[in-house]
Amino acid sequence: MTTCRVRAFAPGSIGNVGPGFDILGLAVAGWGDTVTATRADRAGVAVTDPGLPDLPTDPERHTSGIAASEVLRLANAGRCGVSLAVEKGLPLSGGAGGSAASAVASAVAVNALFGLGLDADRLLEACLAAEERVAGRHADNLAPALLGGLVLVRSVDPLDVVRLPVPADLRIVLAHPAQRLTTAEARAVLPSMVPRALAMRQAAHVAALVAALAAADWALLARAVDDFIAEPARAPLLPGFVDAKRAALDAGALGASISGAGPTAFAFVRSVEDGDRVARAMRDAYGRAGVDCRVRVADVDRVGARVVEWG
Amino acid sequence: MTTCRVRAFAPGSIGNVGPGFDILGLAVAGWGDTVTATRADRAGVAVTDPGLPDLPTDPERHTSGIAASEVLRLANAGRCGVSLAVEKGLPLSGGAGGSAASAVASAVAVNALFGLGLDADRLLEACLAAEERVAGRHADNLAPALLGGLVLVRSVDPLDVVRLPVPADLRIVLAHPAQRLTTAEARAVLPSMVPRALAMRQAAHVAALVAALAAADWALLARAVDDFIAEPARAPLLPGFVDAKRAALDAGALGASISGAGPTAFAFVRSVEDGDRVARAMRDAYGRAGVDCRVRVADVDRVGARVVEWG
Repeated sequence: MTTCRVRAFAPGSIGNVGPGFDILGLAVAGWGDTVTATRADRAGVAVTDPGLPDLPTDPERHTSGIAASEVLRLANAGRCGVSLAVEKGLPLSGGAGGSAASAVASAVAVNALFGLGLDADRLLEACLAAEERVAGRHADNLAPALLGGLVLVRSVDPLDVVRLPVPADLRIVLAHPAQRLTTAEARAVLPSMVPRALAMRQAAHVAALVAALAAADWALLARAVDDFIAEPARAPLLPGFVDAKRAALDAGALGASISGAGPTAFAFVRSVEDGDRVARAMRDAYGRAGVDCRVRVADVDRVGARVVEWG
Repeated sequence: MTTCRVRAFAPGSIGNVGPGFDILGLAVAGWGDTVTATRADRAGVAVTDPGLPDLPTDPERHTSGIAASEVLRLANAGRCGVSLAVEKGLPLSGGAGGSAASAVASAVAVNALFGLGLDADRLLEACLAAEERVAGRHADNLAPALLGGLVLVRSVDPLDVVRLPVPADLRIVLAHPAQRLTTAEARAVLPSMVPRALAMRQAAHVAALVAALAAADWALLARAVDDFIAEPARAPLLPGFVDAKRAALDAGALGASISGAGPTAFAFVRSVEDGDRVARAMRDAYGRAGVDCRVRVADVDRVGARVVEWG
């Protein structure tokens, strides 16, 4: 029987995890984007529902559409026709990996719908073309959205991503302040050059973070989350962040930083109780700065993108 | 019975392991410096044998003397008197961690001789004062010389070093070309600023290297040893290096780079047979460039500094 419709889900993710600017991403359970891909008579890709009114229906400007086109192109399936309906669980310009999740869910759905058999590397390649168009050529949200868990982007060209171990009891606090910060604005404040000594200090923190998560060494983790390059440049654009980070650490977080290009902030904790306390502390700190903020405590999504419905 | 004499050994080490400039060091088995510390009537530190004619007997200019003085100072043992005799197993200005090994062996010997009870952190602190005086304030040779194995220097100020896992069958090829390159010369060619994207590419490689060694992932290791900051700047100072690296990789090495500030070069291999083949290939490549070269194949030293004789 021909498959007419496939619905796929991809989780949101923390990009730029701590010192891992552009190179470390972590998939977060319980939130994400869902894309339903339906066979269409007409060849090519259409976006029938972009998910949010602010998102374009032009398939060349929506990451789900671009990723779907790239999947068809890479699989030499240009005669296939598909229409996409997107359910956005992730905020726009939120630092939650929303553009990546839409691209990945779409790529996985289209790959499954037509039985194209592209492997994870090719799917990532297709999604990278989409992410590049809207947010820049980086894979630190795409890779965890597709693979789940913590992923190191060793290289973008050629694309080489490495799944890394994460302790079973790591929990994540996410704070979503009612702010908007586009990736373009957040990129504009980054230094183009950094002192060599600072670069190696950052590299040491990335290595320590990876080692701490591999060994469930919580004390080391608490010394490894600080970011010397992106966070200092971006914090001034995010009213309340510095206070919220301070409050998170005071409440027992193992570390905290900006998720992706922000405004979402994250903190690492190691228990449900710590999570609740840190979440409230961050919300209250943003509140004192006059910024409304929603908070959530989540596990790591260890599965990544998956088909959730065949029809 | 009072201990009159303690002899301690500290292994040589690869500093700047691959992309881990200033932050990753690896202790190498079977070579190192040995220091005999003997009680003396007169308070303070004397160097009776500096180990090599080119090394100073002034205890303020020999790393063994400086480290010994710092150990006595940190332990409030300024009235103690000690004389040091150094046996240099490591070359001068060789990129083999010789200044660090002399400092560490001395610190361990003096600590044991007087039963001072300084812990590893304090010993490292004492040795850092010595290394700073002769080679710069970095700990990527000191930490493996003291602790053994692979060590990440997360931070120098405050000093924070992390022992990392290394596969049991990792072997190291060391090539010692008949060249001299001082740390000062090798430092002078380094860029003081690096592009942000390059910094994060380097950080990704450090993280990949750490992850590869933790998981014994040889394929990943082979993609993670390249250094984008120090090696490109220093290779032109080291005739034959580029060819020897190429030869090592062609002969099956998993990666190769400069050890410390050079001229020693290293390669990673995973078997005795690969080690022998890679060692010969590197020696021959230096030879074709007109550079005499000794080569050795070694295991990781997993013990670090140790007392080898009490008297």
